Amino acid sequence: MQALVDASRRKESVLVAGLDPIPSRFPEELRILPEAEATLEFCRGILEAVEPCVAAVKLQAAYFERLGTVGMGIYAGLIEAARDLGLPAIADVKRGDIGPVAAAYAEAHLGVYGATCVTVNPYMGVEAGLPFLEETRRQALGGGVFMLVATSNPSSREVQESTEPPLFEVIARMVAELGRPAGDYPDAGAVVGATRPEIGGRARALLPETLFLSPGYGTQGGDASGIRPLLDCNGGGVLVNSSRSILYAYERSASDYKDAAREAARESRNELRLAGARM
Amino acid sequence: MQALVDASRRKESVLVAGLDPIPSRFPEELRILPEAEATLEFCRGILEAVEPCVAAVKLQAAYFERLGTVGMGIYAGLIEAARDLGLPAIADVKRGDIGPVAAAYAEAHLGVYGATCVTVNPYMGVEAGLPFLEETRRQALGGGVFMLVATSNPSSREVQESTEPPLFEVIARMVAELGRPAGDYPDAGAVVGATRPEIGGRARALLPETLFLSPGYGTQGGDASGIRPLLDCNGGGVLVNSSRSILYAYERSASDYKDAAREAARESRNELRLAGARM
Repeated sequence: MQALVDASRRKESVLVAGLDPIPSRFPEELRILPEAEATLEFCRGILEAVEPCVAAVKLQAAYFERLGTVGMGIYAGLIEAARDLGLPAIADVKRGDIGPVAAAYAEAHLGVYGATCVTVNPYMGVEAGLPFLEETRRQALGGGVFMLVATSNPSSREVQESTEPPLFEVIARMVAELGRPAGDYPDAGAVVGATRPEIGGRARALLPETLFLSPGYGTQGGDASGIRPLLDCNGGGVLVNSSRSILYAYERSASDYKDAAREAARESRNELRLAGARM
Repeated sequence: MQALVDASRRKESVLVAGLDPIPSRFPEELRILPEAEATLEFCRGILEAVEPCVAAVKLQAAYFERLGTVGMGIYAGLIEAARDLGLPAIADVKRGDIGPVAAAYAEAHLGVYGATCVTVNPYMGVEAGLPFLEETRRQALGGGVFMLVATSNPSSREVQESTEPPLFEVIARMVAELGRPAGDYPDAGAVVGATRPEIGGRARALLPETLFLSPGYGTQGGDASGIRPLLDCNGGGVLVNSSRSILYAYERSASDYKDAAREAARESRNELRLAGARM
């Protein structure tokens, strides 16, 4: 995780820009291009625009997979472009399989495609997380794994909170066990949504020293104050992802999509600072 | 699911051959080739060899992802080759995301890559499954979704069975709610391992009419008798996956890898019939 922490401190920003390229929402001048070409162009423009204001980028793998093999080429190219800009890339793949299968996914996203961190789904247990951690440990590049703990979508409650103990607490304990010291934070992090303060606070109580990646800021309904319960006792420990409210900021503005994205990223970064989040 | 059911009846086999291509285990004549080329050649050989004895093939996406964009091209080509042989393809992707992200994964694997069915991870709730079901309903090609319910790996117990009620029961109820009638079985199926009879029996009690996809047969430690608790009241409702014990059967034999795979598939099919499984 140290690669993310270092970038966050250098940029004085806990903001992560999520690349969720949805061609139907691209600006008109890109919508006339073939989807793959438009996706590459749009995402490159966003990367360069937001770079000064963000700690990292998060690539939503699904939007590249839906473009077939060409899309995976674009995904690889964007991870490389981010690295050239000094931005660590989080591969938001939410893979969840075991043993050699998980190791193959780890090799793909952390190795072949070159991401710094990945998101992982814990339904199959510690066996789903370990191969990814082993790959980041082997690489020793300051990477890490964010395990889904408490996500911010409505129907997650039925799965993650309806049992006794709540599943998200079981998984939080698993994350605590899986992580090893790796600089300022252990190498096993947690995805914890910012929309439900009581759940976020409970996750923080169980994981006092863990780095959180928090979605749900911006268009998913969370605002900067929702981050407070997630902060550790030093006001740190949280990276906050924002995707569509940055990417498609131009829809609510008279600016070029890149200028609008940069401005939205700058505002979000400042809002998060005011809420007390720092690294 | 009807595409699987029809193929199973036509072949008189409940066996699914899993394509888990692990280059270090390929026969020597293929190990000298570049990995991607060897993978394509190996998997094509297996497909043709096992076709007479299996209802479907299951492609483990991770082993293609680890080969980068070329690997995804091979994945696409094998799904097409399976279709040309009359074999429905199950994309074992275990994706688990929500809303438009899940819809993008569904578009990728059921649309662009052309699989008939997919496996899905339920950690994020019904929102993780619905977009896949909507895609198969839109296509109306007899496809469906297998949701992970009770997997057979050791560390799954801590997640899937340690709460009250056990998580796998919560998910089984979700699968029952998600499925819609689609021929002999609802279009939402369940992944239920064959290694733990008490768990399998409980899953069947909660899902009396659901099609199960059962891993853990062969090298994962299950034998054909482990299938019995999973069968529905007609001796049906279960497709059984076997991967490595078919693919690498040549390691325990004097035969060519294709002949060994066909023989292993034939034996497994017959064993499963003797155990009373039919479609």
